[in-house]
Amino acid sequence: MSASTNSLSSHSPQSWQSVFINANIATMNDGAKSYGAMENAALAVSDGKIAWIGAMQDLVELNLADFPKLSVIDVSGQWLLPGLVDCHTHIVYGGHRANEFELRLQGASYEEVAKAGGGIVSTVKATRAASEEQLFNSALPRLNALQSEGVTTIEIKSGYGLDTETELKMLTVAKRLGEQPGIEVRKTFLGAHALPVEYADNADGYIDLVCNEMLPAVAADNLADAVDVFCEGIGFDIKQTERVFQAAKQHKIAIKVHAEQLSDLGGTALAAKYQALSSDHLEYLSEESIKAMQQADMAAVLLPGAFYFLRETKLPPIDRLREHGVAIALATDANPGSSPIHSIQLMLNMACTLFRLTPTEAIAGVTCHGAKALGLADNVGSLEVGKQADIAVFNVEQVAQLCYQYGVNPLASVYKAGVKIV
Amino acid sequence: MSASTNSLSSHSPQSWQSVFINANIATMNDGAKSYGAMENAALAVSDGKIAWIGAMQDLVELNLADFPKLSVIDVSGQWLLPGLVDCHTHIVYGGHRANEFELRLQGASYEEVAKAGGGIVSTVKATRAASEEQLFNSALPRLNALQSEGVTTIEIKSGYGLDTETELKMLTVAKRLGEQPGIEVRKTFLGAHALPVEYADNADGYIDLVCNEMLPAVAADNLADAVDVFCEGIGFDIKQTERVFQAAKQHKIAIKVHAEQLSDLGGTALAAKYQALSSDHLEYLSEESIKAMQQADMAAVLLPGAFYFLRETKLPPIDRLREHGVAIALATDANPGSSPIHSIQLMLNMACTLFRLTPTEAIAGVTCHGAKALGLADNVGSLEVGKQADIAVFNVEQVAQLCYQYGVNPLASVYKAGVKIV
Ligand SMILES: [Zn+2]
Ligand SMILES: [Zn+2]
Repeated sequence: MSASTNSLSSHSPQSWQSVFINANIATMNDGAKSYGAMENAALAVSDGKIAWIGAMQDLVELNLADFPKLSVIDVSGQWLLPGLVDCHTHIVYGGHRANEFELRLQGASYEEVAKAGGGIVSTVKATRAASEEQLFNSALPRLNALQSEGVTTIEIKSGYGLDTETELKMLTVAKRLGEQPGIEVRKTFLGAHALPVEYADNADGYIDLVCNEMLPAVAADNLADAVDVFCEGIGFDIKQTERVFQAAKQHKIAIKVHAEQLSDLGGTALAAKYQALSSDHLEYLSEESIKAMQQADMAAVLLPGAFYFLRETKLPPIDRLREHGVAIALATDANPGSSPIHSIQLMLNMACTLFRLTPTEAIAGVTCHGAKALGLADNVGSLEVGKQADIAVFNVEQVAQLCYQYGVNPLASVYKAGVKIV
Repeated sequence: MSASTNSLSSHSPQSWQSVFINANIATMNDGAKSYGAMENAALAVSDGKIAWIGAMQDLVELNLADFPKLSVIDVSGQWLLPGLVDCHTHIVYGGHRANEFELRLQGASYEEVAKAGGGIVSTVKATRAASEEQLFNSALPRLNALQSEGVTTIEIKSGYGLDTETELKMLTVAKRLGEQPGIEVRKTFLGAHALPVEYADNADGYIDLVCNEMLPAVAADNLADAVDVFCEGIGFDIKQTERVFQAAKQHKIAIKVHAEQLSDLGGTALAAKYQALSSDHLEYLSEESIKAMQQADMAAVLLPGAFYFLRETKLPPIDRLREHGVAIALATDANPGSSPIHSIQLMLNMACTLFRLTPTEAIAGVTCHGAKALGLADNVGSLEVGKQADIAVFNVEQVAQLCYQYGVNPLASVYKAGVKIV
């Protein structure tokens, strides 16, 4: 009896619900080279989880016809990837900023744009004015666009309410989006995103509100899987950031941070002290902060859409992140101000083109490392026995095509916990 | 009797086949500001052409129910645009270059990539090896992706055969793609795209082949609407370019040119002398050449996808083109080497983000000016009475949203010569 037969018998096909055959599998096991690829392979699903992965030849010894209840899915050489993870988005918001975009391109100054009601203020105003239903209906096509490219897990942040009622409304919409078929939504409370006009010149007072009123309300309704802060000169300073982190700790909610996007304030190192899941943006990240991330096992979330849309020229310190073995995740940062781009496949191309990630690194960014940035690495983000059967099937010959070409969507089908969605 | 009623009676609704009501219309008349927009308007179609455009209030005086055969299409405030024009593509090719893309990102040198069979040579090899059917089947999803974003007219170039048989095969595939519903294909013969290995060190001999064998064969089968040359240090020089232009003139075929992408060889000025339709790329275009374009009424075709993918930093001289009133067209340049990006909507975003075109300019680039670059401005590219009823309906509040946001495709429906396609 061969070893492969042993491994089959230990997970009897009698317990399998479905089996993908004639597959190429990019397992995306964290740390694996070349996508952790297995060609000419098969993958079996049981109870919504991956029950077995092996070579096609190991299946040949079985007569699959002996298991009439087993659903056999012949993917004819297509590539199976873990369902994609978009670990940083702001897709719930009111209005849009096309007007401001057009004014700027017509040469309007920042004052003129501000006078015309531009900037985050306009999004906050529109988000407050929108009903929960309106927010849901405008966010749903954004979510669906990402799902159509293979996303099965998404993070959605609040942060355009900046008052308790609207922050709760946004998170409720995020929760409802998570009831859509085929998607798991992770909700992040980002009350400390910007200073609302009511608190102009009183950032500390606003942080009081975030910590003493908003966060307890969010926690009471179980509306957040993580708490995030925009730690930046135009956001909140280190002390204010730490106060929010402390409040999050009290409520036992995981921590994330927007940091080092425009300057090096030390938000990432602080987040590391608080065992944060990730620090995001990172163009100005120092080597010391990278070491802190590595020690705290944090993910570095890179956002090439914002880099592109804002025409940044300072690249994140990718070589240093590599050297120190920090997990690099990638996300759309989809939002109305700095990245109105709802495409994870475009992020793969931009990560390679603009940030010079290798295709393996880019795909890890939207699979295993995206999952890590959400604290979900034990369950999703790679194709391994025991993990949830979130599977995106792509009609490509080589995995690198997912990064190299753009516009012809090669997604063939999607399974969430083993259930076919598309 | 009001003037508006007069204008209605001059085109009797009895001859109309369909009428779009409650429309916002971006007419995109060449030279019009702000999209040539008419809000709360209507557009009538007769015999596949636009029969009437006017204000909704002018329709109110009619009882549309009196015309039972008239199809009334209520678009509820959505925006009607001319069907989009992608005036520069290379979507017919064999193979892909994901391998080369990945090798480069892994740090391989150009020699190593060449050794691994990279570069245009690999595409020529794969295109020669592919059957007509294989080329058709691989190009169709690329065409469909562009159509799904609102493209109703596309140009497709040959140029990966570099021998007579394969150049004819590519153009035949382009012709067959033009038999698909909802699309007009303009075929461009680009035999002078690169030097095939058989003619290494004998560029003049290859140009003989292009002029004396390929072009006559292409013309005999009526397989080209235009002839194009890659005039560049790594392509063909000015003398060789002129020989191809002369041959094109003899066959009475229109002329286009790839020029001034990497250096200023003067290809554009030469093309102007030959009354070319357009010069394309243009990063290194001189002011003298711009004046020549203006005098020859040529379009300047900008290709932001290649600029992005090649990480160029030298921008085309957009301000000078504006000053001299040269029509700026935009296209995908979709091709396996320098722009494997099949999205006209992404080009709108990139043209604004990277080239700082205004949204009006960008949209003109894929409508009236794209049509001009193909010599089709009399028939398509704007919504004007007498032109073909090629109409893309977008579910946006403001036209600028088509440029500002990306990833959620707002295309609601498409009509080609008045016939609903999507
Ligand atoms: Zn963000
Ligand atoms: Zn080209």
